[in-house]
Amino acid sequence: MGIAVIYGSSRRNGNSEQLAKRLVDGFDADHIYLSEYAIHPIQDYRHSEKEPYPDDDYHHVIGRVLDQDKLIFATPIYWYGPSGLTKTFIDRWSQSLRENKTDFLARLAAKSAWVIGVGDDVPHLKGIPLVQQFQYIFEYTGTSFEGYILGKANRPGDILQDNAALAAVEEIRKSWQEQL
Amino acid sequence: MGIAVIYGSSRRNGNSEQLAKRLVDGFDADHIYLSEYAIHPIQDYRHSEKEPYPDDDYHHVIGRVLDQDKLIFATPIYWYGPSGLTKTFIDRWSQSLRENKTDFLARLAAKSAWVIGVGDDVPHLKGIPLVQQFQYIFEYTGTSFEGYILGKANRPGDILQDNAALAAVEEIRKSWQEQL
Amino acid sequence: MGIAVIYGSSRRNGNSEQLAKRLVDGFDADHIYLSEYAIHPIQDYRHSEKEPYPDDDYHHVIGRVLDQDKLIFATPIYWYGPSGLTKTFIDRWSQSLRENKTDFLARLAAKSAWVIGVGDDVPHLKGIPLVQQFQYIFEYTGTSFEGYILGKANRPGDILQDNAALAAVEEIRKSWQEQL
Amino acid sequence: MGIAVIYGSSRRNGNSEQLAKRLVDGFDADHIYLSEYAIHPIQDYRHSEKEPYPDDDYHHVIGRVLDQDKLIFATPIYWYGPSGLTKTFIDRWSQSLRENKTDFLARLAAKSAWVIGVGDDVPHLKGIPLVQQFQYIFEYTGTSFEGYILGKANRPGDILQDNAALAAVEEIRKSWQEQL
Repeated sequence: MGIAVIYGSSRRNGNSEQLAKRLVDGFDADHIYLSEYAIHPIQDYRHSEKEPYPDDDYHHVIGRVLDQDKLIFATPIYWYGPSGLTKTFIDRWSQSLRENKTDFLARLAAKSAWVIGVGDDVPHLKGIPLVQQFQYIFEYTGTSFEGYILGKANRPGDILQDNAALAAVEEIRKSWQEQL
Repeated sequence: MGIAVIYGSSRRNGNSEQLAKRLVDGFDADHIYLSEYAIHPIQDYRHSEKEPYPDDDYHHVIGRVLDQDKLIFATPIYWYGPSGLTKTFIDRWSQSLRENKTDFLARLAAKSAWVIGVGDDVPHLKGIPLVQQFQYIFEYTGTSFEGYILGKANRPGDILQDNAALAAVEEIRKSWQEQL
Repeated sequence: MGIAVIYGSSRRNGNSEQLAKRLVDGFDADHIYLSEYAIHPIQDYRHSEKEPYPDDDYHHVIGRVLDQDKLIFATPIYWYGPSGLTKTFIDRWSQSLRENKTDFLARLAAKSAWVIGVGDDVPHLKGIPLVQQFQYIFEYTGTSFEGYILGKANRPGDILQDNAALAAVEEIRKSWQEQL
Repeated sequence: MGIAVIYGSSRRNGNSEQLAKRLVDGFDADHIYLSEYAIHPIQDYRHSEKEPYPDDDYHHVIGRVLDQDKLIFATPIYWYGPSGLTKTFIDRWSQSLRENKTDFLARLAAKSAWVIGVGDDVPHLKGIPLVQQFQYIFEYTGTSFEGYILGKANRPGDILQDNAALAAVEEIRKSWQEQL
C-alpha cells in the first residue's frame, strides 16, 4: 500500500501538482489526474428510485484511491474552495455510500490524508474554508486528517519559491521516512 | 431587473429549491436550474495560449445571472460545501475574467447576493465553511453579501419544518417588500 | 433545574443582555452578570506545583452555572470574539479540570448550550470565529451546542430592531415550551 | 523601531513564549509579559457618559506596543481562543479608540503583525478560529497580518520538537534578515 495523489487542477504541471510531486518524490505513489477522467456530477437518489448512476470513470478512480493508505488531495484554490473537478469527485462519494456504505467508510477510516491547496490570494487566510471543508469530510469518513499545506503561487513554478510550503513538505516527508 | 435564483441541486424539488422558491414567491425571478445545463469544468488558461473554452451552456447561464440585480445561490450542502454543479459554474467565472474582466466585475459589484445552503449534518455549524467560501467570493467580485440561511433537512419537504429557516426567509422577503 | 444566563458585557442593559432577557422571559433563569464578580485570569499550573488559585468569585459563579441544565452565553462581540470577561471566566474552567475533572466534565456533558453574540460590524460573518470557538469548547466538554444567534446592534436597544434575531429567539422559546 | 512581543500566557517560559523567543532571537525586541501587568476588563462607555477608565497599566503597555513596528502576539491557545490576558488587553483597545481614534488607528495601520498560538488539541485545525479572530482585528485596524504559526505542544519545551513550527519560524526570520 502506498500513496494516492488526487490532482484536482484542470491543467498539468501547475503549482499544486508541483508541490505534491515534491512531497511524494521517491515514495510509491499512484498519480491520479482528475482532469483525465470523465466524472459527472452526482445524481441525488437518496429519496427516489435508484436510477443508474452515470456510466463514467468514477468507479475506476475511486477504486485506485481506495487501494492506497495515504491520500493526498492536491488542488488549486479556485474561488476559495477545492476545484470543481475535486468537488465533483468527492460529491460522487455519496454514490459509494449508497452502493456499499459500510465497506466504503471502513476503508476510508483506515487511511490518512493530507491536503495541498495552492492559490494566489492570501491563501493562508482565504484557504481556511477549504481546509475546514476537508476537516468535516474526513471527520465524516473517519479518515485521519494529518495535515495541510496552503501554498502561495500564481505562475507555474512560483510554488518552488514558497519556502514555508517547501519546509512543510520536508516535515511530512521526514515523518513518512521514519515510518519506513 | 429582478432576482436570479441559481439552483445547484442535481434533483428537482429538493429542500434547497423549496426554500428558495418560498423566498422569491411573488417576486419577479428567473429560475436557473444548473442541472439542466451542460457546464464543463474550467480550463485554466491563465498561463498558456488561450485555447477555446468549452462550447457549452456557460455563456447562456452567466448571461441570465448578470441580467438580474439580486442573486440567490440555493445549493444543497454536499460534503460540507456547495454542490459540484454550483462550484463548477463558479469556477467558470475565471473564463469571464479573461474574456471581459472589467465589465464582468463591474456588473457583479452592482449586485446583492444571498446564499441558501440546506443539509442534514448540523448545517448551522458544518455549513460555515460554505458560507465563508461565498464570503470571499463576493469580497473578490465586490458583490454585496446580504445574508445566508443554513437550513436543516434530509427528506424532501423537511425544510418546511425548519421554523428558524422559514423565519429568516420571511425577514428577507420583508426587506425586499420595503424596497418596492 | 433551569437556565443559567452568563452575561459577558461590561455594561448593564446592553444589547446582548436585552436579547438574552427576551429569550428567557417567563422561564426559570439564574442571571449571572460576570461584571459583578471578581474573576482573575487563570494560573497555568498544569506543569508545576499546584499553587493556590486566586481566592475570588470563580467557585461561586461556576457553581451557579453547574446547577442549571441549560446555559446561555450572552456576550457582546468585542474585537471579533467573546468579551474578555467571558473568556477569562471560561479560561478558569482549566482550574476545575484540575480540581475535579471527571465530575466537572460529567456535569457539563449533561447540559445544553446556546450562544448569543451581538455586534455592530457584520456580525453574521465576522462573528463566525466566536461561534466556532464555542463549538470546540462544547465539543471538548461534551455539552450539546443547540444553537446560536448572531445579532446586529450598536446603540442600546438596537437589537430589538433585528427581526431575524428576534425570530430566532422565538424559535428557541417555542422549542423549550414544547419540552414543558 | 523594532519588534514588540506581547506574551499572553499566565506562566513564564511556556511553549508560546519559547517559540516567540526563538523567532526574535538576535533582533531588537521589547518583551511584554501581560501577566506582569494589571490590565482590567474594558468599560463600555460607548453610549454613556465617559467615566474614568481603570487606572492601571494599560497605557504603559499599549504605549510600548505602539512604539514598535512589528508586533508578535504569542499566546497559548486556551479554550480554542487567545488567552484571557490577551483578549482583555485587546478589548481595551476600545478605550484607545475613544481617547484618540485617528492617531491610534494610523499607528496600528503602519505595523506588521504575526500571531503565534500554541496548543495541545489539534492546534492546526482547532486554532483556526483564533487565527480568523486576529484576521478581523487586523482588518479593522489596518495592520498587515503577515503570518501565523499554530504550534503543537503540551509540556514546557515540547514546542522545540514541532519541526513544522520551527521551520515556519526560520522562514519569518529569513524574511526579516533580508529586510535589514
